[in-house]
Amino acid sequence: MDISKHLINSELDTSDKRPLYMQIAFLIADKIQKQTLPPGIKLPSERELADLFGVSRTTAINAYRQLEQQGLVWTKVGSGTYVSPVRHVESQPEVPWLQLFTPYPQDPLASTLRDLVATPASNTISLAAGLPDPALYPLETFTELFNYHIDRVSPADFGYIPVEGYHPFRKSVAAMLNEKGIAASAENILALSGSQQGLYLVSKILLAPGDYVVTETPTFIGAIQVFQAAGARILSLPCRQNLELLEDYLIRYRPKLLYIIPTYQNPSGRVLPAHERQDLIKLAKRHRLIILEDDPYSELSYDTQPPPALKALDHYEGLIYLGTFSKILCPGLRTGYLVGPPVLINRLALEKQFIDLHSNNLAQWLVTMFLSEGMLAQHLATVRREYKRRRDAMAKALQRLCAGEIEFAVPEGGFFFWCKLKQAGTSQQLLQEAVNNRISFVPGEVFQTVPTNQDKEFRLCFAAHNEAILLEAIQRLAKTLSQIRKKHLSTASPPCSVRPII
Amino acid sequence: MDISKHLINSELDTSDKRPLYMQIAFLIADKIQKQTLPPGIKLPSERELADLFGVSRTTAINAYRQLEQQGLVWTKVGSGTYVSPVRHVESQPEVPWLQLFTPYPQDPLASTLRDLVATPASNTISLAAGLPDPALYPLETFTELFNYHIDRVSPADFGYIPVEGYHPFRKSVAAMLNEKGIAASAENILALSGSQQGLYLVSKILLAPGDYVVTETPTFIGAIQVFQAAGARILSLPCRQNLELLEDYLIRYRPKLLYIIPTYQNPSGRVLPAHERQDLIKLAKRHRLIILEDDPYSELSYDTQPPPALKALDHYEGLIYLGTFSKILCPGLRTGYLVGPPVLINRLALEKQFIDLHSNNLAQWLVTMFLSEGMLAQHLATVRREYKRRRDAMAKALQRLCAGEIEFAVPEGGFFFWCKLKQAGTSQQLLQEAVNNRISFVPGEVFQTVPTNQDKEFRLCFAAHNEAILLEAIQRLAKTLSQIRKKHLSTASPPCSVRPII
Repeated sequence: MDISKHLINSELDTSDKRPLYMQIAFLIADKIQKQTLPPGIKLPSERELADLFGVSRTTAINAYRQLEQQGLVWTKVGSGTYVSPVRHVESQPEVPWLQLFTPYPQDPLASTLRDLVATPASNTISLAAGLPDPALYPLETFTELFNYHIDRVSPADFGYIPVEGYHPFRKSVAAMLNEKGIAASAENILALSGSQQGLYLVSKILLAPGDYVVTETPTFIGAIQVFQAAGARILSLPCRQNLELLEDYLIRYRPKLLYIIPTYQNPSGRVLPAHERQDLIKLAKRHRLIILEDDPYSELSYDTQPPPALKALDHYEGLIYLGTFSKILCPGLRTGYLVGPPVLINRLALEKQFIDLHSNNLAQWLVTMFLSEGMLAQHLATVRREYKRRRDAMAKALQRLCAGEIEFAVPEGGFFFWCKLKQAGTSQQLLQEAVNNRISFVPGEVFQTVPTNQDKEFRLCFAAHNEAILLEAIQRLAKTLSQIRKKHLSTASPPCSVRPII
Repeated sequence: MDISKHLINSELDTSDKRPLYMQIAFLIADKIQKQTLPPGIKLPSERELADLFGVSRTTAINAYRQLEQQGLVWTKVGSGTYVSPVRHVESQPEVPWLQLFTPYPQDPLASTLRDLVATPASNTISLAAGLPDPALYPLETFTELFNYHIDRVSPADFGYIPVEGYHPFRKSVAAMLNEKGIAASAENILALSGSQQGLYLVSKILLAPGDYVVTETPTFIGAIQVFQAAGARILSLPCRQNLELLEDYLIRYRPKLLYIIPTYQNPSGRVLPAHERQDLIKLAKRHRLIILEDDPYSELSYDTQPPPALKALDHYEGLIYLGTFSKILCPGLRTGYLVGPPVLINRLALEKQFIDLHSNNLAQWLVTMFLSEGMLAQHLATVRREYKRRRDAMAKALQRLCAGEIEFAVPEGGFFFWCKLKQAGTSQQLLQEAVNNRISFVPGEVFQTVPTNQDKEFRLCFAAHNEAILLEAIQRLAKTLSQIRKKHLSTASPPCSVRPII
């Protein structure tokens, strides 16, 4: 095999500024990796290589030396330079990475969340992720804001800014909250890289291994994971929670935190009634319980206004509030915020600086402009109108096609129908069948704080698709339900068990 | 005092969708907080309030009930409703936040970093933060990218994306790295919310309390802090490091990690010579040492090209590489990246999802466009030309005005002059005087891995200001140096000491 034909017609790029020996080494490395130059083959001598590229012999020697250091070629003294045998890096790692990593508490759930966030397979209708419809993202408005307002901003605003956030953003968010009855000024606001970061930061500064945290069950999986990763033990409040059970927990276990989504809860869609909110605050004050109120959906109401946020009901300073622009504007902004007393904001900021110095200020500026130019109200009116239509379409389709097999309540806001199988089988089994019919959703066990494989509940997101697609999805679901019924699945699937490996 | 005059002429906003009682309560709460309605004053009766606003008595009762729950008013049975006494929340906290927080290892350094990142006082020329000049941020180009390309992108790209990053971003970064001789494909790239996040994530998955980490000294303070916050012990390699000391550390302490900035080091400006890079890689391979190579400045070369990155020299998979667009485009993008084997990327992503789900995809898209439209080379040419002029201007001014009092080397790239006082006194003392002359910089002790107050070194950033301002800054520095000399400061300032409080 004449190697030179593979090298002679390759030309070096004259605009390339790297040293010549690196360019030649890179070119040869490329051909070795593509196996144009296969393992074991003898390469041109240093002199031949120099001639082929019209470079000095030193350059040729340096090129081979670099390839040798990369393990791509080897030199047999007195014989020449040869392409090295193929290395199977993955199967024989030089560095035992997996043994070097710190212990990771909970792989399975974590990867479930990742799958939800990842892009679904094509031709499957995904009702899984809690995703606003991309067609409604205000990208044109963002372009307009750049065109009309970027000249008026000081470029220094896009340099490094204080950890707590872009000051005009903190002021605008405070003003927006004031309109909703939440007392806050800029110093009460911490800008976040999405409200997920608020869960992480609060866990980091409040939770030590073994601490108790109370959450609703079912609830947002991302929160459970963060608390568990901090070593916390979870106490569950069933969805139709009663405050007696909570008070019992408070007295017996002295939990560090209550995590709650009072409005259009994820996944159940439930709204905590106004009087229960007031009772909850009173109980929290009595026990000095820290409440972490997560409120991503309250602006997405389709019938009546929901009750005011817990944070609006009282100046109890043990209440931490989390908000986000991911559901109402677009997730890609990665812009949320936390509301709390300055002593808390300060401590969270000390932690946040290690994580990302501060949140994206380009996105904070866009949101600030959106708010200060008064564009939010109009945008909310548009998305509410559209999502209400979708909610109604899905309710109608479920009622017409699936009411025999599942129970569900029509949510007054948010993104989700929370459904329960009436018939035999679990939602896990339903999902396995559903995927064959090219529809996916989230089985209920993912939202449970205690592992189970008996769950009959599941979550459908109606926000991400238009009415025609939603109808098609529910038709596929109905087909799946009928297939399942015919299979006569046992209601008694095997219980959870732990088998030692012997 | 007739209260009604404060309430009668206030009108409720008919477009406000909140319940009337909330609107009224909010209006009164506002006047209480502004002390238009001072503490102790009697409010209108429920009937009067109803008349004033033209609402039902139930609405008036509910408004007062809400204010009562917020602690803003109180009801004296048989007498009426009164504004509560002023509450001093900060001085008498309901929740003892400071006692609830998890221990925080190292306040002083952390707040130093925050001060560097925060905006400096006006009329002081800050040579402190390692900040590119805001006048050079490509904001116009960003606007153009929105105008010409936003239509061509799928809006779903601005929804939730995989934790590892926006795929076109990962591909573009890999292609950019290939041109620099670094072998990488998209699966080797993790998008980061700034390269600071890479330091945090790597610490999180590799370091347990008590582990050893080797760093250069002086080095980037943000890295030291993150390693120390993870409970690591720092082993220092002096700036003109020798590999014998490193090998000694490797054998004696088996460190988990070497952190190094090989090119235009922060703060020293030093470039690790090519042959030392090769020797370092060989040593690392022999000991399976993980190297974390931080490379924010290598594109900012003003004389000759720097040697290739460590990551370009070898396929040793124990080498983790960190890059960022903060110094070459703009910090507000908060967009950096980590390069490593897929097994590492996967584990880091599991950790990152808890922190922020994924990095800002709007910014990742902007950077991708910047790269794929070939705009980076031109932008780099502009900033290199400008920063080179500034470097030269500062070198000239320092030589002319300060050469008697300080030593310094002219850096070949990056942002910093690293200077050393020849005369009596420490850089801390110099800074205290300098601030009076309206110039600031970073004293060397901030970059030391071991606390000291004897340091005579300090860092000047030349990137953030134009030549005229730099000249003015060095004139102020020269004035400060001459003032210090006249003060006959003792070279022997008191050594570090720890005094027990008794």
